[in-house]
Amino acid sequence: MSDAIEQLRARLAELADLENTAHLLQWDQQTMMPPRGASGRAEARATLERISHDMFVSAETGRLLEAAAAALDGSPDSDEAPLVRVTRRRWEKARRGPSELAADLARAAAVGQEAWVQARANSDFAAFAPYLERNIELARLYVECFDDFECAYDTLLDDYEPGMRSAEVGALFAELKGELVPLIAKLCESSDRVDDRCLHGSFPIDRQRQLVAEVVERMGFDPSAWRIDDAVHPFAVGLGASDVRITTRWDETYFATGLYGAMHECGHGLYEAGIAPALARTPLEHGESLGLHESQSRLWENVVGRGRPFSGVLAPRVATLFGMELDQDTLYRAVNRVDPSFIRVEADEATYGLHIVLRFELEQEVVEGRLAVQDLPEAWNSRFEQYLGLKVPDDAQGVLQDVHWSAGLIGYFPTYAIGNLIAGQLWERAHAEMPDLDERIAAGELGALRGWLRKHVHRHGAKFSASELLQREVEAPILVRPFTGYLKRKLSDVYGLDL
Amino acid sequence: MSDAIEQLRARLAELADLENTAHLLQWDQQTMMPPRGASGRAEARATLERISHDMFVSAETGRLLEAAAAALDGSPDSDEAPLVRVTRRRWEKARRGPSELAADLARAAAVGQEAWVQARANSDFAAFAPYLERNIELARLYVECFDDFECAYDTLLDDYEPGMRSAEVGALFAELKGELVPLIAKLCESSDRVDDRCLHGSFPIDRQRQLVAEVVERMGFDPSAWRIDDAVHPFAVGLGASDVRITTRWDETYFATGLYGAMHECGHGLYEAGIAPALARTPLEHGESLGLHESQSRLWENVVGRGRPFSGVLAPRVATLFGMELDQDTLYRAVNRVDPSFIRVEADEATYGLHIVLRFELEQEVVEGRLAVQDLPEAWNSRFEQYLGLKVPDDAQGVLQDVHWSAGLIGYFPTYAIGNLIAGQLWERAHAEMPDLDERIAAGELGALRGWLRKHVHRHGAKFSASELLQREVEAPILVRPFTGYLKRKLSDVYGLDL
Repeated sequence: MSDAIEQLRARLAELADLENTAHLLQWDQQTMMPPRGASGRAEARATLERISHDMFVSAETGRLLEAAAAALDGSPDSDEAPLVRVTRRRWEKARRGPSELAADLARAAAVGQEAWVQARANSDFAAFAPYLERNIELARLYVECFDDFECAYDTLLDDYEPGMRSAEVGALFAELKGELVPLIAKLCESSDRVDDRCLHGSFPIDRQRQLVAEVVERMGFDPSAWRIDDAVHPFAVGLGASDVRITTRWDETYFATGLYGAMHECGHGLYEAGIAPALARTPLEHGESLGLHESQSRLWENVVGRGRPFSGVLAPRVATLFGMELDQDTLYRAVNRVDPSFIRVEADEATYGLHIVLRFELEQEVVEGRLAVQDLPEAWNSRFEQYLGLKVPDDAQGVLQDVHWSAGLIGYFPTYAIGNLIAGQLWERAHAEMPDLDERIAAGELGALRGWLRKHVHRHGAKFSASELLQREVEAPILVRPFTGYLKRKLSDVYGLDL
Repeated sequence: MSDAIEQLRARLAELADLENTAHLLQWDQQTMMPPRGASGRAEARATLERISHDMFVSAETGRLLEAAAAALDGSPDSDEAPLVRVTRRRWEKARRGPSELAADLARAAAVGQEAWVQARANSDFAAFAPYLERNIELARLYVECFDDFECAYDTLLDDYEPGMRSAEVGALFAELKGELVPLIAKLCESSDRVDDRCLHGSFPIDRQRQLVAEVVERMGFDPSAWRIDDAVHPFAVGLGASDVRITTRWDETYFATGLYGAMHECGHGLYEAGIAPALARTPLEHGESLGLHESQSRLWENVVGRGRPFSGVLAPRVATLFGMELDQDTLYRAVNRVDPSFIRVEADEATYGLHIVLRFELEQEVVEGRLAVQDLPEAWNSRFEQYLGLKVPDDAQGVLQDVHWSAGLIGYFPTYAIGNLIAGQLWERAHAEMPDLDERIAAGELGALRGWLRKHVHRHGAKFSASELLQREVEAPILVRPFTGYLKRKLSDVYGLDL
């Protein structure tokens, strides 16, 4: 490796250390920290963020990037070319926003979240609106720092899904909506065909922990490099590939929360754990595209976890651990019941996409000035009824339900549904390459799928955008059909219909 | 407050955030981190250390210190004067060591600890020696950065016990050794007078946890701002006064390990929790003198925990929780049995001091080149027999037992015994000022003592050195007699002898 690249890597290694340290501060805050530690933790996180930001956007980083770019030997598939390319793109973007704006954004996010907690508790959108106005105003100021995006929303989206543009998302989501709305309406007419009572009852938490421990171990949870803990809002975080931390929450009356939630976070964890060791302590050592990351969690949670083959592994264990009667078919059908409801994080696999389409449309319209903040609740409620056939009873169960907008996370939502689409494409390809995949999963052997995902997705870390990676691994752009095709096949099976 | 002092405080607040973050990295490593996280953690700790060091030793910090010093209003008892004085002393000291050396020290410490774990498990000193050589070599390089200390060991000692010199420690320890060696020899002749069988048996860990929870709550453990976790090598750490973390370990056959160990760490925790809020996010927000810190842990563990009055609180709870017969006198005498043994952390209150004197002598000789690393085991074993009358069976129970040297902590050990001496002095004064202290403790009321310690010790944080604080609060230098006097009175009572 050339001296110039060595020097760049040395600086980026320090930044990676700071990023992993920030991950620990966040993990600890949500799992371990005593409550009165909160204000000190907020200061520590802000300080670390400021120091990292200053180190990263410095002219020195720019000089090292330039020297490294000149020293590249031209092989496009090396680790070094993507390292320089991805880092330079982030560096250029990070330098655009003045640090006062960054501080304003951070402050507004903190204040906004506090106001949101209160407003949601009281289902009082009017009390929250000024904070959302402020977040939108700051997002627009942020957008104004850039001149290389076609529209305001593109600038925001690019922070969460690098390289993705709203035109592409809009086209995908229009197609997705066109498929899902009639599909769901049809399933609602046959809702008596699927019964999910087996999921409800009394399930001691310690038995649920045992079930989850067995399942995540099959998936690849490695106690020498992983942890699993409880958190109110579950998440997964990597402090490098050898220290992966996932969290879950438990519902004593409904074991699906803990089980499929853990499979979801374990899917994220496998991504972080599978990134090539050569990328350690570089900006490439974490997945960058949130859509790709979500494709992993949703593939494990929904496609594997709620699939017929693995339901045959789960059902007897659930039956034994909780002392109940349960067969594969009953479990499989129960966990795939389609049932429109108000809360996104509780939505089933089919309706979930419409929750996201709704949010994408509304936040795009607000950012681009086509919809006023004060008109959001009405727009939410009317569109929700149009897509999912339900009347929203109050804003707490509607426009106020998510933390994202209060925290200034605008442009983030689409990545959740993009994850479903990508999962559909990867699953289709993995299945084509491994014709015995279902048999292996039915036998509880998840290593083949994990290995395939590691080879085609995980090991690359942040080297490629979602579209680049798909082009490279499945020779296609992001598509809707593999996901909706998979979903219709499964739901036809579950409902005994020809969808 | 003047602008100059405000500006200094703003910079020091960022450094305090980094220090508390480093504390979290360390706490997590010893309580939560999966094993394979170790190498990434070593890098992260080294990076954070280097960044803190660079920020602290910068000319900018010097300029802020100078401006703040000029702006002081001359009241010597303010927070600002000690802030500037203590920070300037640390700044001058820290500027002497190059930042590369600081990073080398941190990295060698992390690597050394991992090697030590293995070496101790195999009782293989030869496997550990190269790591210790490296730590000694780095310590010598560090010493060479200074020209204002009389001897190499003084430079190292000053990092743990600011202002203390080895001549003073040597004199105190010579006096202590002169008292303890004959005292212990005499007690060994009467060892049949005290029976500690009540401490041994089968004590379920969950019951031990309950006992410890009750005891630390009496001491002042506050669940809204504290945590208690398990650790192989117990420690306490503050991430500011509102986030205090203590750890303990458990022995199912001997409840004293968990109980008195937790009281020890809780004593450290009370110090961190008791530091005045006005000192938050300054370099004064943690105890600086390790001797003072240890005085708090040992006072609570030994003087209170193993005292006759509190034994009357403990005995009935122990009896109930573990379903056994136990009275105050039996417990009190059992936990004060003097019994020379190999492992420092298991040593009784009387022999403990000799474990420390031994380490102080050896590390001083190694640092100053009078003893080779390879000759340490032999020197350890022969001196151990001389002081405590026992032949060391293997290095795991001898020279390899402690983590300190592996972690580059050289000059640290003396502070443990200094802590005992200071505890003796504080106890004598607290008792004189509160004649009913024994009665209060016998009633399980520990708040009066905690309040006294907070007022006279804790709230000051790092404002004063150990000697300065003692001079201020008990009008005396560090003395041996209050401790040995207290010890002889107690052991006379326990053994029915006139010592």
